Amino acid sequence: MKIGIVGGTGDIGEGMALRLSQQHEVFLGSREEVKACEVSDRCVAALDVKGIPCRCTGTDNQGAVDSADIVVTAIPFQHVLVTLKSLTGFDRKIVISPVNPMQKIDHFVFAPPPEGSAAMMIQGLLPGAFVCAAFNNISSQKWKEIDHPLEYSVAVCGNDPGAKKGVMDLANGIPSLTAFDAGPLTTASMVESITPLLLNIARFNKMRDVGIRFL
Amino acid sequence: MKIGIVGGTGDIGEGMALRLSQQHEVFLGSREEVKACEVSDRCVAALDVKGIPCRCTGTDNQGAVDSADIVVTAIPFQHVLVTLKSLTGFDRKIVISPVNPMQKIDHFVFAPPPEGSAAMMIQGLLPGAFVCAAFNNISSQKWKEIDHPLEYSVAVCGNDPGAKKGVMDLANGIPSLTAFDAGPLTTASMVESITPLLLNIARFNKMRDVGIRFL
Repeated sequence: MKIGIVGGTGDIGEGMALRLSQQHEVFLGSREEVKACEVSDRCVAALDVKGIPCRCTGTDNQGAVDSADIVVTAIPFQHVLVTLKSLTGFDRKIVISPVNPMQKIDHFVFAPPPEGSAAMMIQGLLPGAFVCAAFNNISSQKWKEIDHPLEYSVAVCGNDPGAKKGVMDLANGIPSLTAFDAGPLTTASMVESITPLLLNIARFNKMRDVGIRFL
Repeated sequence: MKIGIVGGTGDIGEGMALRLSQQHEVFLGSREEVKACEVSDRCVAALDVKGIPCRCTGTDNQGAVDSADIVVTAIPFQHVLVTLKSLTGFDRKIVISPVNPMQKIDHFVFAPPPEGSAAMMIQGLLPGAFVCAAFNNISSQKWKEIDHPLEYSVAVCGNDPGAKKGVMDLANGIPSLTAFDAGPLTTASMVESITPLLLNIARFNKMRDVGIRFL
């Protein structure tokens, strides 16, 4: 698979590139191509030192979209609108949203847009794309700890059955993630809202990088 | 501890009585005391046949409130308002809400009241009580399978630190539940909304009685 990561120089983007580039061809995008190439080189070096072959190339965000079959929007919620409005070429591509709209008061709260979820907002911005919510509940730090398998569940929401199957296959291919079909895209709010809860649980129980498993 | 279960003849109430009555004195309430006594007798018999001592007494809902230190509102969301308006005596008691407001369309969706969550609505109805949300994400069937420990996490939300600690201790006392402080009561919406997600995951992945673990 060819995977484009929009916002690939952020923490989640870099972590996902480290995992996905071991099995797929990753195009790591950024507003600044130079920065994308630096992060991409760092990924390649981090895996090379462990003897793990990988395919990761730095590019700009538009290049990440254009080169990929599957595009990941690894961007903070507050940058989604301006970033996606600056890009084209999403039609008939699978777009994965790991985006969680939230606010920090004393603790974290789920703060969705009028569409109900970040994933629904992104589908509205990219009407020709097959948007799926996935990977919402895994911390960037855990993505980056490449010596440790990710012992988590991944809830996948989406309206197109083929796209959803593609995203579930992608997730199940990452050791030791297990993907679950969580329903249509309208249900993404229930997946996104788990992340502020996990951040609160981490804080109030003196834990770090809490994830979830369905069982 | 003395635990009162309002709605104790429902599936969740009966399941919780089976677990809690092994360690605590349970007052299983219902609108109809006769029915409560039937269910209570069934709990005692089910545990007796396994040689497990238990303390469970059938009563009406008001009796369950009056006899208890901790009251569990084991009632479907649509019955919360009328049931709690018919009862008194909650002041300075710990009230546990495992209630999840949801609707079924083709799939399940989180359908909170204007207060944001069932727990916040219950706190509004019972201003003198120490309301905590807990046990929202465990299926009634799993509560009832008393030969199997509950290998789940329990997110506990509440505003009063002492009440929250009491509820967390109660949860941690049930094999093999692990309680987590999830923050103030305003965050209960994020816990309640996990349940319709779990029901969807069960349905779309041909599973039964799906629960959650934080790790």
